[in-house]
Amino acid sequence: MSVHTIIMGQGRFMHRDSLTYPFEERSLQFGDGVYEIIRIYQGNYFLLTEHINRLYNSLEAIDITISQSKAELIYLLDELIIKNNIVSDAHVYLQITRGSAERNLAYPEDVEPNIFAYVKDTPRPINELAKGVSVITYPDERWRNCFIKSINLLPNILAKQNAIEHQTFEAILHKDEVVTQCSSANVYLIKNHAIYTHPANHAILNGCTRSVVKKIAEKQGITFNETAFTLTDITSADEMFLTNSINEIMPIIKIDHQTINSGKPGQLTKQLQAAYIKEAKIIT
Amino acid sequence: MSVHTIIMGQGRFMHRDSLTYPFEERSLQFGDGVYEIIRIYQGNYFLLTEHINRLYNSLEAIDITISQSKAELIYLLDELIIKNNIVSDAHVYLQITRGSAERNLAYPEDVEPNIFAYVKDTPRPINELAKGVSVITYPDERWRNCFIKSINLLPNILAKQNAIEHQTFEAILHKDEVVTQCSSANVYLIKNHAIYTHPANHAILNGCTRSVVKKIAEKQGITFNETAFTLTDITSADEMFLTNSINEIMPIIKIDHQTINSGKPGQLTKQLQAAYIKEAKIIT
Repeated sequence: MSVHTIIMGQGRFMHRDSLTYPFEERSLQFGDGVYEIIRIYQGNYFLLTEHINRLYNSLEAIDITISQSKAELIYLLDELIIKNNIVSDAHVYLQITRGSAERNLAYPEDVEPNIFAYVKDTPRPINELAKGVSVITYPDERWRNCFIKSINLLPNILAKQNAIEHQTFEAILHKDEVVTQCSSANVYLIKNHAIYTHPANHAILNGCTRSVVKKIAEKQGITFNETAFTLTDITSADEMFLTNSINEIMPIIKIDHQTINSGKPGQLTKQLQAAYIKEAKIIT
Repeated sequence: MSVHTIIMGQGRFMHRDSLTYPFEERSLQFGDGVYEIIRIYQGNYFLLTEHINRLYNSLEAIDITISQSKAELIYLLDELIIKNNIVSDAHVYLQITRGSAERNLAYPEDVEPNIFAYVKDTPRPINELAKGVSVITYPDERWRNCFIKSINLLPNILAKQNAIEHQTFEAILHKDEVVTQCSSANVYLIKNHAIYTHPANHAILNGCTRSVVKKIAEKQGITFNETAFTLTDITSADEMFLTNSINEIMPIIKIDHQTINSGKPGQLTKQLQAAYIKEAKIIT
């Protein structure tokens, strides 16, 4: 499946082949921008406001100001769905960069940020959600401001590639044995019916799906500990799962050579999955 | 001054306006590539082999394989100089990315890396070299593999911008008070006629100009300690300087509110500058 034909660039809609950038675009030479990936179920955005709010937080953190208001951006994303007749499960990729200018590390003056967004069909990973996935552990080599959803993604690429080469789904990142998150997901440990995950500080990206898990946990009276856990804690975990907008609440059944919950999705994880489906109004 | 008209893309030469990239170029969405900036004095490359060797090391570190040999790449860079009739001081920017492919963190298959290079007039910073520059200190927020000259440069941008907003030349980066390097330069402290600089491990980029300083120090019997120094060590420094390919051996005369060597370039720094001019065969 490839990107749908009509994409948005600078607030205008065009054929995907028409959107190109000069070699002096700052994303291309510096990775100087931020992005969001937004889930679409049956043609409807899920958590759109949350993603847009996070996008503006990321922009603010790296001093990029765009002329569009949040409402205008949402209008453009709605148009993107309509123009491509999206009625099934998909996702939108939205990127904003500081703009195109002659190479200079410092911010250029009087440059307009570049914005683009495309939509792509993305079925729910039904099989994996039912059976769970295997993951590896990998050192968290990223920078110190991972709360910014930036396109400086080289460390994430290296971690994810390592996971793929080990025939696994993801890499659980750890800084000196303290688990932070995955290459593109938050990660959770369940022990004695309580959920543990890294606090939403500068060391991790505060996932929109993470907020949904927190909300579900609060609703259902499940303890949600925003306390980091370690690689050693994993050895005695009852259940584990990871979350992101594409993969929802994904059970982890194996980490490196260790099986979790006898290699099956745990009971509490399945309970959270069921609540997520209701929360996202997914028609199954 | 802008980029010279003829640039190199994929081994071919073209007008600079002709080189554009699709929005799915991996540099643009991930910063998935590496680069070099190579000094040109009076139309001649300086340290070209050293830069090309480092480029191939960076490529190997992130598993990018290009079809060009080092000799072929050097041939293309020579052509770039000839086609633009470069006879004065300039620099070449050379970038290689994993290629263009549908967005996926893991490496794409059967994708050709993208290569481009341009040349730009760049006078020697004569005034600054004579008078020295002021710098600020800033936390080193970068990732753990700074020996790779990658285009994931957002932390460097934020540091450099902070330096500029403080009306200074550069930002000296430190990890928990240990000085690593600058946002785009290596940094050195002189104490009792000995030079100190961070060891060339994963925490810094091993500058080509740094190698020249090391070579000069060895020739002249000056102790070159590859031992990290701290922010506290700076308070009692005799002299300080920074180096990179564009700014050569640049005296530091002020750090934050502290003056170094009474605000004048130090004697040993000037001795190194003189030796650099001979080493680079610069006609003054």
